[in-house]
Amino acid sequence: MLLAASASGVFPIAPTPFHPDGAVDWASADKLFSFYDEIGSDGTTVLGMMGEAPKLEPDESLGIVKAAVRNMPGKPVIVGISAPGFAAMRTLARESMELGAAGVMIAPPPSLRTDDQITGYYAQAVEAIGSDIPFVIQDFPLTLSVIMTPAVIRKIVSDNPSCVMLKHEDWPGLEKISTLRKFQADGSLRPISILTGNGGMFLDFEMERGADGAMTGYAFPELLIDVVKLQKAGQRDEAHDIFDAHLPLMRYEQQLGAGLAVRKYTMMKRGILKSDAQRKPGSTLTARAKAEVDYLLARVAKTDPRVKC
Amino acid sequence: MLLAASASGVFPIAPTPFHPDGAVDWASADKLFSFYDEIGSDGTTVLGMMGEAPKLEPDESLGIVKAAVRNMPGKPVIVGISAPGFAAMRTLARESMELGAAGVMIAPPPSLRTDDQITGYYAQAVEAIGSDIPFVIQDFPLTLSVIMTPAVIRKIVSDNPSCVMLKHEDWPGLEKISTLRKFQADGSLRPISILTGNGGMFLDFEMERGADGAMTGYAFPELLIDVVKLQKAGQRDEAHDIFDAHLPLMRYEQQLGAGLAVRKYTMMKRGILKSDAQRKPGSTLTARAKAEVDYLLARVAKTDPRVKC
Amino acid sequence: MLLAASASGVFPIAPTPFHPDGAVDWASADKLFSFYDEIGSDGTTVLGMMGEAPKLEPDESLGIVKAAVRNMPGKPVIVGISAPGFAAMRTLARESMELGAAGVMIAPPPSLRTDDQITGYYAQAVEAIGSDIPFVIQDFPLTLSVIMTPAVIRKIVSDNPSCVMLKHEDWPGLEKISTLRKFQADGSLRPISILTGNGGMFLDFEMERGADGAMTGYAFPELLIDVVKLQKAGQRDEAHDIFDAHLPLMRYEQQLGAGLAVRKYTMMKRGILKSDAQRKPGSTLTARAKAEVDYLLARVAKTDPRVKC
Amino acid sequence: MLLAASASGVFPIAPTPFHPDGAVDWASADKLFSFYDEIGSDGTTVLGMMGEAPKLEPDESLGIVKAAVRNMPGKPVIVGISAPGFAAMRTLARESMELGAAGVMIAPPPSLRTDDQITGYYAQAVEAIGSDIPFVIQDFPLTLSVIMTPAVIRKIVSDNPSCVMLKHEDWPGLEKISTLRKFQADGSLRPISILTGNGGMFLDFEMERGADGAMTGYAFPELLIDVVKLQKAGQRDEAHDIFDAHLPLMRYEQQLGAGLAVRKYTMMKRGILKSDAQRKPGSTLTARAKAEVDYLLARVAKTDPRVKC
Repeated sequence: MLLAASASGVFPIAPTPFHPDGAVDWASADKLFSFYDEIGSDGTTVLGMMGEAPKLEPDESLGIVKAAVRNMPGKPVIVGISAPGFAAMRTLARESMELGAAGVMIAPPPSLRTDDQITGYYAQAVEAIGSDIPFVIQDFPLTLSVIMTPAVIRKIVSDNPSCVMLKHEDWPGLEKISTLRKFQADGSLRPISILTGNGGMFLDFEMERGADGAMTGYAFPELLIDVVKLQKAGQRDEAHDIFDAHLPLMRYEQQLGAGLAVRKYTMMKRGILKSDAQRKPGSTLTARAKAEVDYLLARVAKTDPRVKC
Repeated sequence: MLLAASASGVFPIAPTPFHPDGAVDWASADKLFSFYDEIGSDGTTVLGMMGEAPKLEPDESLGIVKAAVRNMPGKPVIVGISAPGFAAMRTLARESMELGAAGVMIAPPPSLRTDDQITGYYAQAVEAIGSDIPFVIQDFPLTLSVIMTPAVIRKIVSDNPSCVMLKHEDWPGLEKISTLRKFQADGSLRPISILTGNGGMFLDFEMERGADGAMTGYAFPELLIDVVKLQKAGQRDEAHDIFDAHLPLMRYEQQLGAGLAVRKYTMMKRGILKSDAQRKPGSTLTARAKAEVDYLLARVAKTDPRVKC
Repeated sequence: MLLAASASGVFPIAPTPFHPDGAVDWASADKLFSFYDEIGSDGTTVLGMMGEAPKLEPDESLGIVKAAVRNMPGKPVIVGISAPGFAAMRTLARESMELGAAGVMIAPPPSLRTDDQITGYYAQAVEAIGSDIPFVIQDFPLTLSVIMTPAVIRKIVSDNPSCVMLKHEDWPGLEKISTLRKFQADGSLRPISILTGNGGMFLDFEMERGADGAMTGYAFPELLIDVVKLQKAGQRDEAHDIFDAHLPLMRYEQQLGAGLAVRKYTMMKRGILKSDAQRKPGSTLTARAKAEVDYLLARVAKTDPRVKC
Repeated sequence: MLLAASASGVFPIAPTPFHPDGAVDWASADKLFSFYDEIGSDGTTVLGMMGEAPKLEPDESLGIVKAAVRNMPGKPVIVGISAPGFAAMRTLARESMELGAAGVMIAPPPSLRTDDQITGYYAQAVEAIGSDIPFVIQDFPLTLSVIMTPAVIRKIVSDNPSCVMLKHEDWPGLEKISTLRKFQADGSLRPISILTGNGGMFLDFEMERGADGAMTGYAFPELLIDVVKLQKAGQRDEAHDIFDAHLPLMRYEQQLGAGLAVRKYTMMKRGILKSDAQRKPGSTLTARAKAEVDYLLARVAKTDPRVKC
């Protein structure tokens, strides 16, 4: 199964579970992907930034791909392959596809500045991994400091038939979605899937602007699934209602650099991960911060019974 | 009246009102500061980044200081004086104080990197403006790309007796507040006022961590005043309740680069500003974005009767 | 006299002379511009980065423009007007032109990233200052972190008839000159003047690639004039010979952040400036560094009799 | 043999030789390291930035280490191990040491800003690789955007007994060397080796300031060896004479991003590399640029008979 431009729904960005000693926690990995499958995720993305991918050894990376494919049968697994050199990207891409991945995600290296540099980079990357592997553009200026205009994204899509999806993570980014969909409407851009990130902080309106779903890592992916479904069903107020109930916690999780610690802590409390450990260099939560998360969980639980604390 | 280290409460960051042709709208300026005064603000800060300060001519800047001082009698007015050269900073600082300002705010230039560069810069700035003018450190890494550790802030405070306040705008920043208050508790830092920014996005917890209030620009400063008062009164749940009701709109306003357009549009709708114009180069809201703000206003209005739409 | 696209030769970037107490040294300013005139400079550029422009008060800036115009009769004076807001840029541009300046130079603000942002900025800047003032694009990625491709420069030139010159300061930048001249040859770019910067470090080859001259601030502008003249006369080896003799000193002067101190020290030794003071915040040379400059001057003097030490 | 704080002389930064198809050219690798050995290099550094290290597969990296160790018997081989995660750094460090490397070099990740972040990073890195492996601090702000003050470097050295060398590549950087040597003189810093980079552009004076030698990649490492030896022998003028003769070419090679193409082209012309190919993404020289290098080689050859063209 290959990732298609018609993909939609929720693809949780998977954290990589570690034991406190830094070893990969394979049992938790199985549990995590089973959980994603059971709640109705439409796929998953592994080895993204939030997956601590650069800290993994090559065989560990492939182990994560295997765990995702094994536990989410019939659902597309996207593999983040961003790396400083094309050789490593090619190797990871091709081995992942052999293991059953549906496609790969490519972030631009932070050194890129001009429009030509960005489109040129994607052309070279596709040449390196092969044009038979569907790929996702990761557009995340806040962290990568690479700014892609809608026209640049359109050019990447036009130049590379294997480009099937945009992970949209610009901030602010609502107008960008509208512009891309307008490009599609006027025929200058072929249809692609747009899934949004940024921890879900604007998912309520992103769906209204034309996003197909979410690819991000909030500790309650069930909420992302709710919002996407309700918006697709035209239940706008209901989508905002449930979104707003989670927003205080979502906002707390969306703290640059510290967010992963919040996410792993919450998922550990939910019983999905055995430990909230990060491989070094990582971040940790103070007792005070944990108490704040607990307080927020208790407050969200009043509205959303799935949230236990 | 000079700004003191005991200052607390809410100091709204004032936008600068413009007519659609780019001229300063002095009538709206009067209205704006009167409004801040009437709702119970504890002071105000003018000529900050959100005040479009670098776009103003010197006499316009002083006009804004005058308007603030005139319309907020007895309340401290803080003047942002950040500029590339010390000569301009000195001129604006001293002229502002003569006009009745209570103190000045100084942001570090984006080129600073090391701890020594940062503390050295503040020492030079104080030498330039004079050590008789109370000043505020602006700590805003997301936009300025200058990172000040708690120890660096402590050193600036210790080295410069005229430093009385920190505008805290780090993200994430909760632990920074806790660390600074711990420094105070262990006697290594004299007491200073800490007011927080970031559009208020973490004000609920910032107060619990020890902040004295807020210095930011949300279009409903009444909400900031509520949260600060409730937290000071120990009414934690009530503080979070009213905060959470506004969070969806607050989050929408907190969009880097686009936020000022949302803020000015909302303040225009509230009748505080006559126009939401920004002086060039500025940003504008699309019709779609305006409709989204309208929708959010209507939703907040259900909980907070002060919000009309 | 207005700056024309046919301008060529050497336009020294003028440092602003200060007394040790930080006041502008107007006598040295007169001497400096007379010196530029006497050695055969083709014009000068004032209020550039190396002119410590952001540290000047508005009336001081105009004083420098006046001094340049007065002391270099019949030669074009270019005024750096880069500022965070268009209002200040317009004021300085129009007042400078009234005082007899020939054109202005505009650097892009460091926040610009995409091609559209850059071309859009120049369009807005021209709208602000008026399309009747000839302007120079300053392309200096190392310091400004804005990267302009040849195609972006072409678009700025095409969109704005008042654009007559490029200050080329990319590094590496030789291929950029070749590409722009190729654009001219194929008719896609109208002729513009290209003067080069970077302290002259690549002037030998820049002339061979098609530059019209130099706009930079080496303490011996006579050398820049020699290289430009010799290359224009087809005396390649002679151009490189005299260039190579100065390169060790030129290289020493081209130290980011410290270079201005070297330049002012050398010009003070030459009797052109009375003091090598910089207005704060500035940099100074250690005794060791001064001795190194003295040593290099003595070495260059062996080949170039104009260099006394 | 372990790298010691007494190390001095010239350690060329080795480029990684590739065939035009992107495969590692192992024969050229042998030739390259033999060449370094024969001309009297004191060691070598492999897998640095100029070694295109991030583009190599793990087994290729180890192959390069082996080639260096095999062809430079009895001389220390330093291995660049910088990577986004500590796991990969540990693996490469320990495997390299087993293969006979003498030590490793660690660059700080570009995200580091504050003094504490930098010293904290090195502490964690040493914990990860083990405190038994001698390491080199790489201080290269221009490319890494991490600025280390002399005090930060002192703290890293003091905190980590296994730190034995600084690769000094700040620009400007002469005062930094003087400050570090002053620290040693006043007893606040234990002796460490300081080798300098920046393509050798300031090697003449760096030696006079107290550097122990050079670790950089100029295509004529013989020149670096000359300058280091002459300066150590107190033959100042002679050192500058030979240095100045090479400076025009050295300057041409020191073009950010393009320099490696110049270096590989020159080394190919010298017969040391079979091809000047870079693995993708890489840069290439235009015919015009090659002609410029040829011209410079011919000019240097007039003074230095070792340079043939």
